[in-house]
Amino acid sequence: MNVITIERKILEKNEDLAKLNRETFKQKNIFVLDLLSSPGSGKTSILEKTLETISKQVGIAVIEGDVQTDNDAQRIAKHNVPVVQIITMGGCHLDAQLVRNAMDSLPLDEIQLLFIENVGNLVCPAEFDLGEHEKVVILSTTEGDDKPLKYPAAFRNARTCILNKTDLLPHVDFSVEDFKKNALKINPNLTLFEMSAKTGEGIEAWTDWLTQKIKNG
Amino acid sequence: MNVITIERKILEKNEDLAKLNRETFKQKNIFVLDLLSSPGSGKTSILEKTLETISKQVGIAVIEGDVQTDNDAQRIAKHNVPVVQIITMGGCHLDAQLVRNAMDSLPLDEIQLLFIENVGNLVCPAEFDLGEHEKVVILSTTEGDDKPLKYPAAFRNARTCILNKTDLLPHVDFSVEDFKKNALKINPNLTLFEMSAKTGEGIEAWTDWLTQKIKNG
Repeated sequence: MNVITIERKILEKNEDLAKLNRETFKQKNIFVLDLLSSPGSGKTSILEKTLETISKQVGIAVIEGDVQTDNDAQRIAKHNVPVVQIITMGGCHLDAQLVRNAMDSLPLDEIQLLFIENVGNLVCPAEFDLGEHEKVVILSTTEGDDKPLKYPAAFRNARTCILNKTDLLPHVDFSVEDFKKNALKINPNLTLFEMSAKTGEGIEAWTDWLTQKIKNG
Repeated sequence: MNVITIERKILEKNEDLAKLNRETFKQKNIFVLDLLSSPGSGKTSILEKTLETISKQVGIAVIEGDVQTDNDAQRIAKHNVPVVQIITMGGCHLDAQLVRNAMDSLPLDEIQLLFIENVGNLVCPAEFDLGEHEKVVILSTTEGDDKPLKYPAAFRNARTCILNKTDLLPHVDFSVEDFKKNALKINPNLTLFEMSAKTGEGIEAWTDWLTQKIKNG
């Protein structure tokens, strides 16, 4: 019972800070996405491909969350966009306070789109509001088409879902149809994208969607 | 500070229970492995292949940990070994108490080898002692060769590491050499196995190692 009480307090404090973040994002007119997935599903690769495609037209910044290393921030920095690395030192998810601290290092007046790449973990990050507009859950075709049923919170709390690594479909046991059925069973309102960050297939539908979201403010 | 104190208490309580589990396993002469990995790395597939290969010679049981669904337990049950499914309802890892409860449903006098398949999560399960002899960390070739550096606790706290999905090596950007270098940098004492649970390649070295471990008591 102790644990539940404490957790409730943490979540309440997090919600207050998330609200503050949300107000700042609204004030600065920044569209913010929180990317969730297991390790290795391709969050950073999707970001790199996205930056290649639209970072000339849109002001983009990235907050990277990792348990250890700044490898991901180094990959993003090569694309000449502002990036902040949060190292959680074992922590299994980002929270609104960590994001708020990272925001201090970003030129908020110059950006229209902020990606927050959460810690690679399909469980814990799903429960924490960071003040983002939407959570985007990413699954790769190597992880199995049953994952929405097994990790429902991530799919329930996201509004958008990317199926990545479609280039590997010929080599893995993965039914796109079953995956979609499972994902929509958990969350009938999910917007679904299929792509390969490696080959670039399907990236345009995603970047078109992003630029549309930014236009709509 | 509150959180840290509570977490310490949880961990201390867990350690006491893990000690109890360990005593029971010793008394019953059961070799126990705690399998850790991201969702979709192939924990259940490796177990299925292992059961196919040695469940005739060795008494094996499985405890399955999942956030939701009993899909994995159903897969294991087809191999005619005792299996218990723990559904954590959102919890991001197993703990010694959950394992202790599950042990009550297992015929401990008839088994020599117990697999505990933890929740698919490369972060949280790494910190929790369940009373097992060893943690086995599993990574698949689709997840990236940098993962030992990015998720060090899992590789530091495991004694054995399986690289799975070697059949996909021709189709992914993954250097086995870099992976080994990174894994051994975090934990120089790791025993490494490479395998494809899909094709069966490399499974024998693993099952030989298992039967040797059981023989050595």
